[in-house]
Amino acid sequence: MERHFEQELEDLKQRLLWMGSLAETAVHKSVQAVLDAEESLAEAVLEEENAINEMQLEIDGRVQRLLALQHPMAMDLRFILAVSRINNDLERIGDQAVNIAQSSLRILRHPQVKPYVDLPRMGELTEGMVRDSLNALVHNDQAMAKSVLSRDDDVDRLRDQMFRELLTYMMENSAVVFPAFELILVAKNLERIADHSTNIAEDVIYMVAGTDVRHAAIDRR
Amino acid sequence: MERHFEQELEDLKQRLLWMGSLAETAVHKSVQAVLDAEESLAEAVLEEENAINEMQLEIDGRVQRLLALQHPMAMDLRFILAVSRINNDLERIGDQAVNIAQSSLRILRHPQVKPYVDLPRMGELTEGMVRDSLNALVHNDQAMAKSVLSRDDDVDRLRDQMFRELLTYMMENSAVVFPAFELILVAKNLERIADHSTNIAEDVIYMVAGTDVRHAAIDRR
Repeated sequence: MERHFEQELEDLKQRLLWMGSLAETAVHKSVQAVLDAEESLAEAVLEEENAINEMQLEIDGRVQRLLALQHPMAMDLRFILAVSRINNDLERIGDQAVNIAQSSLRILRHPQVKPYVDLPRMGELTEGMVRDSLNALVHNDQAMAKSVLSRDDDVDRLRDQMFRELLTYMMENSAVVFPAFELILVAKNLERIADHSTNIAEDVIYMVAGTDVRHAAIDRR
Repeated sequence: MERHFEQELEDLKQRLLWMGSLAETAVHKSVQAVLDAEESLAEAVLEEENAINEMQLEIDGRVQRLLALQHPMAMDLRFILAVSRINNDLERIGDQAVNIAQSSLRILRHPQVKPYVDLPRMGELTEGMVRDSLNALVHNDQAMAKSVLSRDDDVDRLRDQMFRELLTYMMENSAVVFPAFELILVAKNLERIADHSTNIAEDVIYMVAGTDVRHAAIDRR
């Protein structure tokens, strides 16, 4: 029974990581769809959304079974509760990737507003946060989790910079209002993906150390 | 022991409802801060944020203790897991109210872009969704929870309408780009509050019926 339980925890982690890799791929493709004006990438993201949603339900089912049939304590309990929350964050990351993919399809219909400078940086930074929050989970690595938290401000700064620049474009040339607004929505979606990654990193710290850092994180923001 | 457990579940529910009323009040005040250009309301929201954050941690602590010390099954387990998720959604609703309050302070510095028509409607609709999702929780009322889900599309429609109208104002008069953009952010925040309310309603349905309706809800969107 004990060994069986260990195996179920390991399976749970593997399924969550698989879901994480789906979410990470969706983010990458959706940002590339904007940068390369590549419709097929956007459509791939829209098609793969269902797989992420199904995975979320499967993982929640596992969480519930483990809590009902076993009686996990201490670190195991914290792990299972963290998985339940991370699962939720990953599904939301998938939703944000879908939003970006949909924006990319609308952006395609207009001439490019400006050369993309901040957007690829913001995309890379955000994808790195998703990836490293999952790496922190794999290795129970608090230092890695903290490095994810420390990058959130950089994403917010890039978002503000993009907002300012795009609003200035809109003021100078009313013809770009619609596509520039879509780019603003993309920046907001990336910011939310970064926020979800910090949630994941906070859950990793909570799981490993038993310390709840969310309050500190809220103050930091 | 059994009676003690029942009492703890009841206490947990009461704390969650108290947190819900804090979140609901924050949303109401933040929207009024925009509509009435009333700085003191915005500041009240910013001051009360900490109370919501502390409540979130307290409720999570209770959830963890109950799962560790008791061994809840079936409906009780579903209730506790639902509380854990609803707690998270309520904290995010509080965050969105803070965002709206901050926008209201920036909007104040500009002349009013246009008479507010859709915004008060969107505010009322969203506040109603928060309130009724909590009412559904109090009374284990699935019908009420479903009525919350059915209102989400109305909020999305109002948001799209506000976007279109405000972008048109921006195209016609570059002087209003900044305040109009803040109003767009407010509409987006309200949309997210409505989304969190639908999450809560879905959790109530899951708790009462043991049915996970999130997938259907995702397709519906």
